[in-house]
Amino acid sequence: MSARPVSARLLGVGVGPGDPELVTLKAIRALQEADVVVHFAKAGNSSNARAIAARHFKPGVAEIELAYPVTTEIPKSAPAYCCAMRGFYDGAARAVAAHLDAGRSVAVICEGDPLFYGSYMHLHVRLAPRYPTDVIAGVTGMSGCWSAVGAPIAQGDDVFTVLPATLPQGELERRLADADSAVVVKLGRHLPKVRRALSRIGRLDRAIYVERGTMTNARAMALAEKADEEAPYLAVVLVPGWEHRA
Amino acid sequence: MSARPVSARLLGVGVGPGDPELVTLKAIRALQEADVVVHFAKAGNSSNARAIAARHFKPGVAEIELAYPVTTEIPKSAPAYCCAMRGFYDGAARAVAAHLDAGRSVAVICEGDPLFYGSYMHLHVRLAPRYPTDVIAGVTGMSGCWSAVGAPIAQGDDVFTVLPATLPQGELERRLADADSAVVVKLGRHLPKVRRALSRIGRLDRAIYVERGTMTNARAMALAEKADEEAPYLAVVLVPGWEHRA
Repeated sequence: MSARPVSARLLGVGVGPGDPELVTLKAIRALQEADVVVHFAKAGNSSNARAIAARHFKPGVAEIELAYPVTTEIPKSAPAYCCAMRGFYDGAARAVAAHLDAGRSVAVICEGDPLFYGSYMHLHVRLAPRYPTDVIAGVTGMSGCWSAVGAPIAQGDDVFTVLPATLPQGELERRLADADSAVVVKLGRHLPKVRRALSRIGRLDRAIYVERGTMTNARAMALAEKADEEAPYLAVVLVPGWEHRA
Repeated sequence: MSARPVSARLLGVGVGPGDPELVTLKAIRALQEADVVVHFAKAGNSSNARAIAARHFKPGVAEIELAYPVTTEIPKSAPAYCCAMRGFYDGAARAVAAHLDAGRSVAVICEGDPLFYGSYMHLHVRLAPRYPTDVIAGVTGMSGCWSAVGAPIAQGDDVFTVLPATLPQGELERRLADADSAVVVKLGRHLPKVRRALSRIGRLDRAIYVERGTMTNARAMALAEKADEEAPYLAVVLVPGWEHRA
């Protein structure tokens, strides 16, 4: 092992689904102590995680903004997408490692929970084997959504599943029929397909559409009553379980 | 509508997976303001949620401890179980309603997230249609577990699922083979069956056994290396996804 200063530490910090009050005491303490704060954002946009958590940063803290080189310009299946993203995460890991090698603590802030569908994981797998690392769990976006609408999502021996809306319609039908309770994520342009899948298996009536979960401008309605086919990328559909209640 | 005092409010408050620092600011504020705090516990045990959150209660707050009338003495499939639990939740809802009718705010504290496999849901479905209600999302026990062991659980277009260990072995095999990423909950005496299921589908090597997630005495190991067949009821097995990493 190198003679790395003891304060060098990588922190994956979950800052919750959007409401600044859904941040934990542990995340706040980590942010108050971190020497460097890292956040991801789409090029040209500011980081949602930063908007939630910046009030807790140490005054004058160093910040690294990592702007994704591509988002939806290249299909995910294209080799160019994979290549661009791998290069981006490799470079990001090197930038973070330079601070860790200098003995600094580095907090990577993440919407929701760091290890549940988050970009932090790409840094974690590259750096956690080499540096002391702590992950601070956060309230997930999906918890924020079902709490905002007061929908009991799963109970007792329910099987619960999270499905990306990108799955083919037949696959969505099969999996939605096979689980007691589900959340369909990354809705965007896939909304009509998800609606058709739920309708074909007879569960459209249970489905709830939620946009901007725990933001102040959240919007929710029965999916069956949503008139149009437009949905933001981060909208979700909740299919609550617990159909046989005691 | 009755002329109920405006401060009457039911709050489902998630207090996270165990670490008192994984409580959110929103939960703390709710507990500091609540007139009455309600917690569930096994008869003869004290409430875990209370142990996590009591430091935030208003001094001299009224408390209601709800002790489950049965836990594992009667099989869940028995009519007597269902009957006993329904009567218990009906009585609990009446006790809470009496405080709400008197104009008090009542916080029901829950380990993890209130609407994700929590007892609070039984009060929610009985009372939320009649009283102003807010649900405060919490960090789930499973997030606490995968964060404690630093295991990236799901990424990109992964299908994620939560499975109760009570499922028959064949059902566990089918569902564990069909998801990219899984958490098996309520392990207890079902550990040997879960191990056999993972082994038969060739995923035992990826599985991580976690006991007492974010408690100070947490314990985790590769499931393949766990020598005995003993597990507490609340132990979990994590099967991380994201097998094809960029």
